[in-house]
Amino acid sequence: MTGPFESKDVSVAILARRARETSRVLATLPDEVRREALVKAAYALVEQKAEILAANERDCESARVQMDRGLMSTSLFARLQTSERGISEMAAKMHEVAQLPDPINRILSTTELDKGLRLEKVSCPLGVIGIVFESRPDVIPQVVSLTLRSGNAVLLKGGAEAINTNKALVAVLRNGFKSVPQIPYDAMNLLHTREDVAEMLALENEIDLIVPRGSKEFVKHVATHSRIPVLGHGEGICHVYVDAAAALKKALDVALDSKVQYPAACNAAETLLIHAEIAPLLLPELLAAFTEAGVIIFGCRNTIALATGNPNLLPACEEDWATEYSDLRISVKIVQSLDDAIAHINQYGSKHTESIVTEDEEAATRFMQQVDAAGVYHNASTRFADGHRYGLGAEIGISTSKLHARGPVGLEGLTTYKYRLFGDGHTVATFGQ
Amino acid sequence: MTGPFESKDVSVAILARRARETSRVLATLPDEVRREALVKAAYALVEQKAEILAANERDCESARVQMDRGLMSTSLFARLQTSERGISEMAAKMHEVAQLPDPINRILSTTELDKGLRLEKVSCPLGVIGIVFESRPDVIPQVVSLTLRSGNAVLLKGGAEAINTNKALVAVLRNGFKSVPQIPYDAMNLLHTREDVAEMLALENEIDLIVPRGSKEFVKHVATHSRIPVLGHGEGICHVYVDAAAALKKALDVALDSKVQYPAACNAAETLLIHAEIAPLLLPELLAAFTEAGVIIFGCRNTIALATGNPNLLPACEEDWATEYSDLRISVKIVQSLDDAIAHINQYGSKHTESIVTEDEEAATRFMQQVDAAGVYHNASTRFADGHRYGLGAEIGISTSKLHARGPVGLEGLTTYKYRLFGDGHTVATFGQ
Repeated sequence: MTGPFESKDVSVAILARRARETSRVLATLPDEVRREALVKAAYALVEQKAEILAANERDCESARVQMDRGLMSTSLFARLQTSERGISEMAAKMHEVAQLPDPINRILSTTELDKGLRLEKVSCPLGVIGIVFESRPDVIPQVVSLTLRSGNAVLLKGGAEAINTNKALVAVLRNGFKSVPQIPYDAMNLLHTREDVAEMLALENEIDLIVPRGSKEFVKHVATHSRIPVLGHGEGICHVYVDAAAALKKALDVALDSKVQYPAACNAAETLLIHAEIAPLLLPELLAAFTEAGVIIFGCRNTIALATGNPNLLPACEEDWATEYSDLRISVKIVQSLDDAIAHINQYGSKHTESIVTEDEEAATRFMQQVDAAGVYHNASTRFADGHRYGLGAEIGISTSKLHARGPVGLEGLTTYKYRLFGDGHTVATFGQ
Repeated sequence: MTGPFESKDVSVAILARRARETSRVLATLPDEVRREALVKAAYALVEQKAEILAANERDCESARVQMDRGLMSTSLFARLQTSERGISEMAAKMHEVAQLPDPINRILSTTELDKGLRLEKVSCPLGVIGIVFESRPDVIPQVVSLTLRSGNAVLLKGGAEAINTNKALVAVLRNGFKSVPQIPYDAMNLLHTREDVAEMLALENEIDLIVPRGSKEFVKHVATHSRIPVLGHGEGICHVYVDAAAALKKALDVALDSKVQYPAACNAAETLLIHAEIAPLLLPELLAAFTEAGVIIFGCRNTIALATGNPNLLPACEEDWATEYSDLRISVKIVQSLDDAIAHINQYGSKHTESIVTEDEEAATRFMQQVDAAGVYHNASTRFADGHRYGLGAEIGISTSKLHARGPVGLEGLTTYKYRLFGDGHTVATFGQ
């Protein structure tokens, strides 16, 4: 894991310049080569899992010390630790991305501008992607699958707590690539320190896109400290709106799943909006179910009035509507109309994922048209917002920006397009004459 | 032109909030309504051309005083002045955009995630567009066509020198919209002062995209002073590369047209790269043609050696390769290979439009793959980079960014997409079981 696999002594600027040069090579590699490389890397992961697990165990040992000292949370530790099964899943996902259709060199449109003058719009890689992520080791194979499959070079910066695992993963993936000699060494490189990140953010001429995966504060920091375009989401304040015409069972299922199935996820619901007409019927049972699941509920005045006696129910304040709890807490508000619900979501939502539960098709249509979010759902849990569930194979992140890519971002979000114009000496001076 | 047409006394923040609300209405309007509104507005332009011409004459009068004092260039004046024919052309372009296929509510993909769980990716408007432009009056009908056709609200800030023309244009377009009552009054609003622009740049929650059309410095200013995404191009440093295998006549035609047909345009060529093998044959004739067209030539050492005696030829310095002249000046460099040409362009180009002249298909393919630009051309003038010539009907601007929209941007660049998920009470907890 030293020598050619080590890039510690090379500055980020040099690695980025090499990535830029490499990206020009990657853009010209045929589909089969990029596909083959991923397949070979997936095999290498499984064959050399012992090395990865050993490295991961070293990271876990240090992490246990940190935990004992109260310097690391158990949830962070859980995300750090991998297993034989975890590695098999990483390999399976790489195979899956390898099988997806080629996202580049697709002719998106062709126009005959004049006799012998043909304009083609063709998809192509963005170039160089920089990604900053926390401890989860499965991020590396997932990100490398997506970037290589789409012909991009990538700079990876993982959490310090996973340094041995990340180094081992990169080394093993490179071993896999070795049998496909067209893949340049610098198709991926690992950065190591926090200073590396700062350096990376300044390299706007070499890096085309930064993907920060981390806290809201970190994403904001990146967006304000770099002129490189950022793909990510600062917050996930998702809502479930239970309409007057909702089916009660569906409302219960969708609301519960959206909150408790995995509350730390960005696509978990933070606020439940309930139409006043259905609230007396639904609220007591729903809040009892939340309480049973250990959820603390912050209710508006009307909610409190309808569900007195619930031990987990507290009064909500204005701040609750704008809070991403990311844990077993939820805010609940009774609204007077569909329009009120839409207005509330457009005011407090983070443009991530919003769901309406209703049997009224017209209400669903209006909600889905007027709510401004990457995902608008009808009778489904907000937790579905995920690249893998969407069939994208994997995701590099979820975007709440409206430009370029929105929602879970897979291969397509890592491409751009260029216009190719084929002429025969055509000039504008004589065009259209 | 007062009363309901005047928005001078309303703050930009209020106009932007109204635009945001209006955008939600526009997003739900059927295709026929948006189309009909443009057709009616186009008729109004022609019917009420006298008002527009009178207002334009008032602007031109003031401008003539400025010119006499040396405070306005003749080219700025020429762009400011419109005519009956100019107005007919504006109307014709509006009709053209009205006839284009609806860019919103297009189902981009559909995936069945599970039994009864359907995911749709559907195109939708961005929301609110802010555009800042200089004197050319034809910008308003063009921009309003594109934004309304794509279901967006727009805030328009034109140059102070065109204030009367712009007010008249907005009033006349609104008169046209009157017969289509579904179109909200605030679908477009005119801003007036430089302070309005500063205010607009801070409204990141209300405005989804800023399009600055102006000097390189202004575009840079906007990008650094706003967190709103910016669509535009800072510079247009375009190249024509004449390959060793170029046909001489095509090289002459393409190089000349790229420079002299309209040198002030961003898609005009600034640098000519010539392969060393063809230079002795081509250069004397080509530079003579440039000289005859009044072009000043900044040549590399080898160029100077080959074309001694040309009165318009001066030695180039490093700075020339990074300069957008925007007038009858060009830099000329002899390169040793196709790779040298590609490397030069990737170093100095602005990712706008780059052309190769060659009969060698392989060289063309490599150039078009490896040059990183919005437009890569084979045997065609760089001047073709234009939304109208590309068949987009009109353009809101040309983007040299790689994200979201690239090259000339028409309707599609003013849309984003959202994912619609239709379920029947689906939860992630039971998904795929």
